[in-house]
Amino acid sequence: MRNIKLTIEYDGSRYSGWQRLKNSDETIQGKLESVISEMVASPIEIIGSGRTDAGVHAKGQVANFHTKSKIPIREIHKYINYYLPQDIIVKEVTEVPERFHSRYNVKSKKYVYYIWNHWIPSAFDRKYSYHLVEKLDIEFMKEASKKLVGTHDFIGFSSVKKTNKSTIRTINETTIAKEGNMVKFIFIGNGFLYNMVRIIMGSLVEVGLKQKEISYIDDILESKNRSVAGRTLPPQGLFLEEVYY
Amino acid sequence: MRNIKLTIEYDGSRYSGWQRLKNSDETIQGKLESVISEMVASPIEIIGSGRTDAGVHAKGQVANFHTKSKIPIREIHKYINYYLPQDIIVKEVTEVPERFHSRYNVKSKKYVYYIWNHWIPSAFDRKYSYHLVEKLDIEFMKEASKKLVGTHDFIGFSSVKKTNKSTIRTINETTIAKEGNMVKFIFIGNGFLYNMVRIIMGSLVEVGLKQKEISYIDDILESKNRSVAGRTLPPQGLFLEEVYY
Repeated sequence: MRNIKLTIEYDGSRYSGWQRLKNSDETIQGKLESVISEMVASPIEIIGSGRTDAGVHAKGQVANFHTKSKIPIREIHKYINYYLPQDIIVKEVTEVPERFHSRYNVKSKKYVYYIWNHWIPSAFDRKYSYHLVEKLDIEFMKEASKKLVGTHDFIGFSSVKKTNKSTIRTINETTIAKEGNMVKFIFIGNGFLYNMVRIIMGSLVEVGLKQKEISYIDDILESKNRSVAGRTLPPQGLFLEEVYY
Repeated sequence: MRNIKLTIEYDGSRYSGWQRLKNSDETIQGKLESVISEMVASPIEIIGSGRTDAGVHAKGQVANFHTKSKIPIREIHKYINYYLPQDIIVKEVTEVPERFHSRYNVKSKKYVYYIWNHWIPSAFDRKYSYHLVEKLDIEFMKEASKKLVGTHDFIGFSSVKKTNKSTIRTINETTIAKEGNMVKFIFIGNGFLYNMVRIIMGSLVEVGLKQKEISYIDDILESKNRSVAGRTLPPQGLFLEEVYY
């Protein structure tokens, strides 16, 4: 069996997220599976690096699928983009060793969250950022974000229900940069729990607005309690930027 | 009477252009006039620096209106953005001398046209650029674009019907820059005829694809004949970037 790896970019605005749903055609995985199954004339299941929620975007989601089809890589690439809707684009198609698995083999992931921080909104960035009127103290947020770096139990920053799976993750790097009115928050880590980036963002915003001290991040980590953390920021500011193997 | 100047940004995707139409509410001018008339409780006519076509965007369109209303500038600004649709944003509101006229007083305008030049399309830039698969020779296009600079009769680059008005305009500057797969074409001039930038672009693309020589631009200028020029490129790549007074 051939194993085909896809790197995918999507504007998540009108989708119910990555994961195929029984009663909705409006998922990224669902769209890809129906186009690819049609192409190879047999039902295909694609494995994603992980889910993204409804409304979340991706610049570099990764997925793979197995097939006996002999269609050349370049033809697969052209066919998929031709039949996919315009807001889902396959950027790269490569043939990988049969054992490669998009989810199990992930080393780390990069997420980016955008906040448009000005009282006048933006006509072009409204669907790709969260609009916040009150001015953020970026230096405060940088200090607070450093406390996330390292290996921690991130369950306080997650919407996961009680689980037997580990909620310990490592964040390798956080970067915050302001360009004009746009503030860009970059997170690189070995894994992210359900809603983790958006809850981290809701908590960092409270620090940036000086409603909370920098030590708030420590408090959330120590509490291991979702209700201590800030709110879940909306999905349209979030991008799955890259998956590393 | 107070004279209020607006600087406006809009995503033109779903509009029939700038100019108010009798049977459509879907124009930028129409939207602005209905919000502002409601605000000052009397019918307001706004004067734009010029029209933009259906689907064309703006980062810095300028308009003005006269009113007896005493509402403070900051309140006007907040009110307008609150009631406008999210894809039209007033970036700046200022009070100007009564004689200021958005159209008559224009010194020059800056337009930008974006081409996404790669066989793989972009999920995020599809509504804000023209997608061209064949590779453009940028150096060729730079040479050709220099021939536009200066004072010329641009009627060959326009969709205007026979007219008594002058079709002589001055282009002060053209700049072409490539960033990744995106090619950005900047035009600054004292005025632009109907469809002029989009027909210039259609003609420059023929040079960039080496279907025409660099001298093609001279031929079009000399011919004074629309049918000699290239096709009109689609509206979604075009931005009215700035109006200078």
